[in-house]
Amino acid sequence: MSDVRVAIVGGSGYTGGELVRLLLFHPHVQITQITSERFAGKLVAKAHPNLRGVTKLKFTSVAQLDACDVLFLCLPHGEAAKNWDRYAGLAPRVIDLSADFRLRDEAAYRFYYHNNHPRPDLLADFVYGIPELHREALRDARRVACAGCNATATILGLFPLYRAGVVLPQNTVVEVKVGSSEAGNRANEGSHHPERAGCLRSFSPTGHRHVAEINRELSVADKASVHFSATAIDMVRGAMATSHVFLNQSLTEKDIWKIYRDAYGNEPFVRIVKERDGLYRFPEPKLLAGTNYCDVGFEKDPSSDRVVVISAIDNLMKGSAGQAVQALNIMMGFEETTALAFPGLHPV
Amino acid sequence: MSDVRVAIVGGSGYTGGELVRLLLFHPHVQITQITSERFAGKLVAKAHPNLRGVTKLKFTSVAQLDACDVLFLCLPHGEAAKNWDRYAGLAPRVIDLSADFRLRDEAAYRFYYHNNHPRPDLLADFVYGIPELHREALRDARRVACAGCNATATILGLFPLYRAGVVLPQNTVVEVKVGSSEAGNRANEGSHHPERAGCLRSFSPTGHRHVAEINRELSVADKASVHFSATAIDMVRGAMATSHVFLNQSLTEKDIWKIYRDAYGNEPFVRIVKERDGLYRFPEPKLLAGTNYCDVGFEKDPSSDRVVVISAIDNLMKGSAGQAVQALNIMMGFEETTALAFPGLHPV
Amino acid sequence: MSDVRVAIVGGSGYTGGELVRLLLFHPHVQITQITSERFAGKLVAKAHPNLRGVTKLKFTSVAQLDACDVLFLCLPHGEAAKNWDRYAGLAPRVIDLSADFRLRDEAAYRFYYHNNHPRPDLLADFVYGIPELHREALRDARRVACAGCNATATILGLFPLYRAGVVLPQNTVVEVKVGSSEAGNRANEGSHHPERAGCLRSFSPTGHRHVAEINRELSVADKASVHFSATAIDMVRGAMATSHVFLNQSLTEKDIWKIYRDAYGNEPFVRIVKERDGLYRFPEPKLLAGTNYCDVGFEKDPSSDRVVVISAIDNLMKGSAGQAVQALNIMMGFEETTALAFPGLHPV
Amino acid sequence: MSDVRVAIVGGSGYTGGELVRLLLFHPHVQITQITSERFAGKLVAKAHPNLRGVTKLKFTSVAQLDACDVLFLCLPHGEAAKNWDRYAGLAPRVIDLSADFRLRDEAAYRFYYHNNHPRPDLLADFVYGIPELHREALRDARRVACAGCNATATILGLFPLYRAGVVLPQNTVVEVKVGSSEAGNRANEGSHHPERAGCLRSFSPTGHRHVAEINRELSVADKASVHFSATAIDMVRGAMATSHVFLNQSLTEKDIWKIYRDAYGNEPFVRIVKERDGLYRFPEPKLLAGTNYCDVGFEKDPSSDRVVVISAIDNLMKGSAGQAVQALNIMMGFEETTALAFPGLHPV
Repeated sequence: MSDVRVAIVGGSGYTGGELVRLLLFHPHVQITQITSERFAGKLVAKAHPNLRGVTKLKFTSVAQLDACDVLFLCLPHGEAAKNWDRYAGLAPRVIDLSADFRLRDEAAYRFYYHNNHPRPDLLADFVYGIPELHREALRDARRVACAGCNATATILGLFPLYRAGVVLPQNTVVEVKVGSSEAGNRANEGSHHPERAGCLRSFSPTGHRHVAEINRELSVADKASVHFSATAIDMVRGAMATSHVFLNQSLTEKDIWKIYRDAYGNEPFVRIVKERDGLYRFPEPKLLAGTNYCDVGFEKDPSSDRVVVISAIDNLMKGSAGQAVQALNIMMGFEETTALAFPGLHPV
Repeated sequence: MSDVRVAIVGGSGYTGGELVRLLLFHPHVQITQITSERFAGKLVAKAHPNLRGVTKLKFTSVAQLDACDVLFLCLPHGEAAKNWDRYAGLAPRVIDLSADFRLRDEAAYRFYYHNNHPRPDLLADFVYGIPELHREALRDARRVACAGCNATATILGLFPLYRAGVVLPQNTVVEVKVGSSEAGNRANEGSHHPERAGCLRSFSPTGHRHVAEINRELSVADKASVHFSATAIDMVRGAMATSHVFLNQSLTEKDIWKIYRDAYGNEPFVRIVKERDGLYRFPEPKLLAGTNYCDVGFEKDPSSDRVVVISAIDNLMKGSAGQAVQALNIMMGFEETTALAFPGLHPV
Repeated sequence: MSDVRVAIVGGSGYTGGELVRLLLFHPHVQITQITSERFAGKLVAKAHPNLRGVTKLKFTSVAQLDACDVLFLCLPHGEAAKNWDRYAGLAPRVIDLSADFRLRDEAAYRFYYHNNHPRPDLLADFVYGIPELHREALRDARRVACAGCNATATILGLFPLYRAGVVLPQNTVVEVKVGSSEAGNRANEGSHHPERAGCLRSFSPTGHRHVAEINRELSVADKASVHFSATAIDMVRGAMATSHVFLNQSLTEKDIWKIYRDAYGNEPFVRIVKERDGLYRFPEPKLLAGTNYCDVGFEKDPSSDRVVVISAIDNLMKGSAGQAVQALNIMMGFEETTALAFPGLHPV
Repeated sequence: MSDVRVAIVGGSGYTGGELVRLLLFHPHVQITQITSERFAGKLVAKAHPNLRGVTKLKFTSVAQLDACDVLFLCLPHGEAAKNWDRYAGLAPRVIDLSADFRLRDEAAYRFYYHNNHPRPDLLADFVYGIPELHREALRDARRVACAGCNATATILGLFPLYRAGVVLPQNTVVEVKVGSSEAGNRANEGSHHPERAGCLRSFSPTGHRHVAEINRELSVADKASVHFSATAIDMVRGAMATSHVFLNQSLTEKDIWKIYRDAYGNEPFVRIVKERDGLYRFPEPKLLAGTNYCDVGFEKDPSSDRVVVISAIDNLMKGSAGQAVQALNIMMGFEETTALAFPGLHPV
C-alpha cells in the first residue's frame, strides 16, 4: 500500500503544528505540503521549534497547493468556508479543524456566530469528527468537521448518560476549564503573560459557541439544553469539563459505571478514570498533554440525584489534531491508533 | 484608648501568619503572645519569612499563655473544641478560625465531619464570622466562628439572590476553584510539587464540608440546598466560586444589579465587579491576594433563566485571617477597615 | 504641613499603576493628575483593576497637565528626554522612572542604546535613584533618574564587596532571572501566554543595557566590568540576581557578613538573608511582591575564592515605583519608609 | 532476534516510571519485572497514572526478582552499592541510574557525599553513561552509571570547548536551573506546593555533588574546575545550564559554531540551537519534556572574551531514563534512537 499523500493548509498555527508532529511519524502518510503565508519558504521548525532536526520540510504558500489525497484545513474561523471550492477541488477527502462546518442548523449558526453562514449548502455534507459517536459515518466520509475542543470534552463526558436516557436533559450545568492554547497563536491583550498568568477568568459565563454542537450531539433521547460556562486558568494545554447532571431515576454508582463501560469499554481513546484513593482519582488534563485520550470519571452525590462527571482532554489533540488523525485513520482503514500512541508524561 | 491585647494560638500556620502580619500594623492592637510548639523560642520570622525585619516577636509555647483581651485560635480541626475551657478562661473574647464551631446543628456536623461534636453545648454561643450577614450580632459577640473560605466565597456570592427570594433555592450548582494554601502548611503526597503543580483536580466533586454552612446561611426565605463541587488548581492563594442559580421569575440584569447593590452598596469589602469590556470583567482571585475584598459579579444567560455568579476571595484573608480582623474591628468598635486597607497588586 | 502635590505622567502602565497604588496611601501626598492618552477620561481602575473602589481618580490627557510639586515620569524609553522641557517646566522636582537619564556617559549610552542621546546636556543634572548609594545627593535633588530594575538588584547585591575592595572587579559573573512584568504592559509575540508560560529563556545572554549602570556604580575602588546575562522565567513580578564574585584576598563568611552589615545595617529596605536551615535560607522574589525590600544573601564557596551573592527585589517596587517613592520621601524630608511598609505575603 | 528481557528495580519512582514508559514501546525489549515494595502486587498505573490502559503490568517485590538480560536500578542513593552483589548476580548487564557509581575517585566521593564509598572496588568497572563522550566504551559495557541530570546538561554544553582547549579551564561559572522532579517523588517540606510554587530558590549556591562528575569529564586538555550553583524554579521537568566560559584565545562565533558542529554534527540527540530571531533562539527545557534531546546554544560576548553557553534537557529523560535507554540501545546494538523518537510538544 503506497502512502496517503496529505497536505495541511494553515500549518503554522498550534493545531497545524500538532498535525505535522503526528503525521511525520505516521507510517502510512506522506506530508506533501504545509502552507503558511507568513512562513512560506522557511523551515517548519521555524514555527514549531519542537520539530527542529525532526523534519526538513518547509512551508509553502497556499497559492502553490497541489492536489493530494487528504487535505487538512487549520484555518482561522470563516476561512475554510470562504474558499471552500478551491480546497474541495484539491482533494477527494477534506478534514476541517475550524468551526465552519460543525453545525447543521443555520439558525443555530446565526445565533452563536452572529452571522449568516456563508455556505449553508455544504452543512449537510460534513460528518462531525468525534469517532466515539460517528465512527460508522466516518468510514465513508468525504468531509469531516472536527469538533470544538470544549465540545469534545463535554460531549464525551455526557453522551453515555444522555443516550441511556437517565438524566434530565435540560438541567445539566457544565463548566469547562481551559488553557491558553485554545485561543491560538496570535498575541493579544488577553494573552499578555502578566495578565494571563495566574488568571482564573470567567471569560464566557454564558453564550459559548460550542453549546450548539453540544446540545445537538446530546439530543439523543430528548432535546438537550446544557447550561454552559467557560473559565480560563493558568495552563497552556488542556481542557476539563466538570458537568453536573441530574438523574431522572435512582441509580447507584455501579449502574452508572455500567453505562460508561457499555459506551466506552472498547474505545481505544476513552478511559474511565475513577479510583478510590490516590491523587489521580479523576481525570486531569496534565496527564494527557500530547495524547489522544479523553479521560472520563464521575461521582454520584450521596445526598442528591446529582452526578458530577469529569472529562479531560488535550485540547490540541483529542480536541483537534489528534481527533483529525483518528478520523483519518478511520476513513483510510488504518489501525485507529496509528501515530496516536504517545501515552503522556508523569510527572509533568 | 489603650491598645487591645491579643494573643494568637497556633501562630505558625498560614492563617496564623496572616493574622500576625495584619495585627502588627493595627494601630489599636498589641500582640502579646503567639504560640507554636514547634517554633517556641524562635523568631516569628522563622515560620513567616515575609516578616523578617518587620517584627522581633518570638513564639511561645501554648503552656505559657497569659490572659489577654482577645484570643485568636488558629488550630487544626478539633483542637479548639478539645481544649476550649482553657482558652475560654484566658480571654473574654475568642475568635476561632477553625471549623469547630461553625455549625449549630449537631446532625449536620456528624454528617459532614464523620464524628459527634465534642462540645455541642457550645455551638449556640458562637456568632458566624461573616460581617455582611451578621454585623449586628458581631458587635456584641464574645465568641466568633470564622467561616470556611469556600463557604465565604459562595455565601457572599449567593446571599443577595437568596434573600431576595428570586431563585429556586435547591437548584443551585456551585463549583469552587481553590489554591494549595487552603490545605495548610503540612507537606503531604497531595501537596508534593510535581503532583500538585499544573493540577486541575476534582478533589471533592460531592460531599464537601462547607456545604453545611452554606446551606444554613442561604436558608433565608426557603430551605437552601446547593450542589457543590471543589476543584484544585495550580494557584497558592485564592478561591473563586462559579455559581449557577436558576431564577423563579423573570429578571433583567438591571434587576439583578439592583439586588446586589441593595445588599452590598455600603459594604467596605464587597465590590460588584461586572464590566462590559476589558480583561477583568468579572472577579479574579489573583487581584485579591493579601486583601480583604470579596469581589462578586454575575451574568444572566440570555437563553435561559440561569444566572452565573462569580465570587472571589483570598482564602487566607477574607476567607480567614482578614475576616477575623474585620470581626475584631466590629467587636471592639474600631473603624471596620482598620489594618485591612491593602488594595492588592496588579499585575501579579 | 500641607500635602505635596504630585502628578504622574504615563500612569496606565505597570510602574505608573504601582506609583498610584503607593501614593494613594501616602499621608503627605495628594495625587493631582494621572495621565494616559489611551484611558483619558476613564477611571484609573480601568487600567489598574486592583484599585477598583479604592480611588475615583480619572486619567487625564498629558495635554491638560498642570503645575505641581513633584512630577513622576513613567514613559516608554525616549519619551521623557524628547519632551523634557515641557515636563521640567511643570514642577521643580522631577522623578523619571525610564532609562533616559540613568547614564552620564554619552558613549556608554550610544553603545548600549544604539543611538545618540537626544539631550546630553541634561545627563549631569540627575541623581541616580538608589538611596543606599546616593541618599545624601537625593536630599537636595531636583531630578532623579530611577535605576533599572535588574541594575538595582545587581548593584545592591555587589556594592558592599566592591566598595570594600575585596573582589577582582572585572571577574564577576551575574545572571538575573526576571518576570514578565519587566517588559511592560504591551502584548507582543514574546509575551503571548502559551509561549511565555513555562519559559526559561536566555533572552539576553550578553549585551544587556543595564550593564552600563551597574559598571558605573560598582566602579568605587577600581573600574568594574561585570559579565552579565538575563534569563526570563515563568513569573510575573520579581527579579533575582545570582552573582559570582571572586575575592582578591582570603575572607571568611564572618568577614563577608561584616562587610554587608556595615553597608546595610541601618538600611530600612535592605535585609541580609542568610540562614543555616529552613526553606528560605536565601533571598527569593516571591516573598517581596508588593514590598520595597531588596533582600541580599551570600555563600562563600569552601572550595574556591568564589562568593555567590543572591539579591532579590520586586522589579516594579524597589526596582521602580517603590524606589521612586523612597526617593520622594528623602527629597521631601518625610520618614523614608512612608507608604512603603507593606511586608509582603507568605505563602504566595 | 528475540526480545531482550529487562527488569527495573525501584520502578515506582519518577525515573523508574519514565523507563517503563519508554521500554513499553521499545520493539526489541520485553519488560519482565518492575519492583516496588510499596506497590507490590498493584498495577504499574497505580504509581504512574499516565500508563493507565497502556499496560497491565504489575509491580513485584524485589525479593521475587528473577534473572534477566539487563537490569536497570532506579534506587535511592546508596541502595545500589549496598546490595550490589545480589543485583550483579541477576543479569550480565546492569545500568544504574543512581549516583552510586558515577565517580571513580574515592576522595572526591568522600568530599561530595560526606561518606566513604561502600564499594570502592567496583568504581573502575562502570562506564559513565553519556554516549556523546563514551559511546565506544558503552558498546562493550557490562555496567553503566548514568550521569547526574545537572551534570549531563553542563557537560554536554561545555565538553566541545574544553576538548578544543580554547577556554580557561578553571574560570567557568555554571548556574543550573532545575524543576521539582529532580528531587524525586517523596513529599517533604521543601516540595510543599505553597512553598515550592513560584520559588526562585538558590538551594545549592556552592558544593553541589554533580561538580565532581563535571570536573572529571571536562578535564580533557587540562584539569577543569567549574564554579557551580543550582537554583530551583517553578517547573516540574527540565534542567538548563547557563555556563559562562572565558576563552584563552580570540574566536569568532563562527569558530565556536564549528567546534560545536565538529562535536555534535552527527549526534542524534544533541541539537545546536542558536537563531538570529524568533522566541526560541536558545535552548529551553519546556520544548524538551518527554524527549531525549540535549539542546545546546551559545553567544559570544562582543565586549569580552566570555562565551555564554546554554544547554537544556529533560532531567528525567536525557538526564536519566532516556540516557539509560540510549545506553541500552548502544550496548545491545540497536538503532540508537529506538524508543526515543518523541519530538516534544509545542506549545506547552
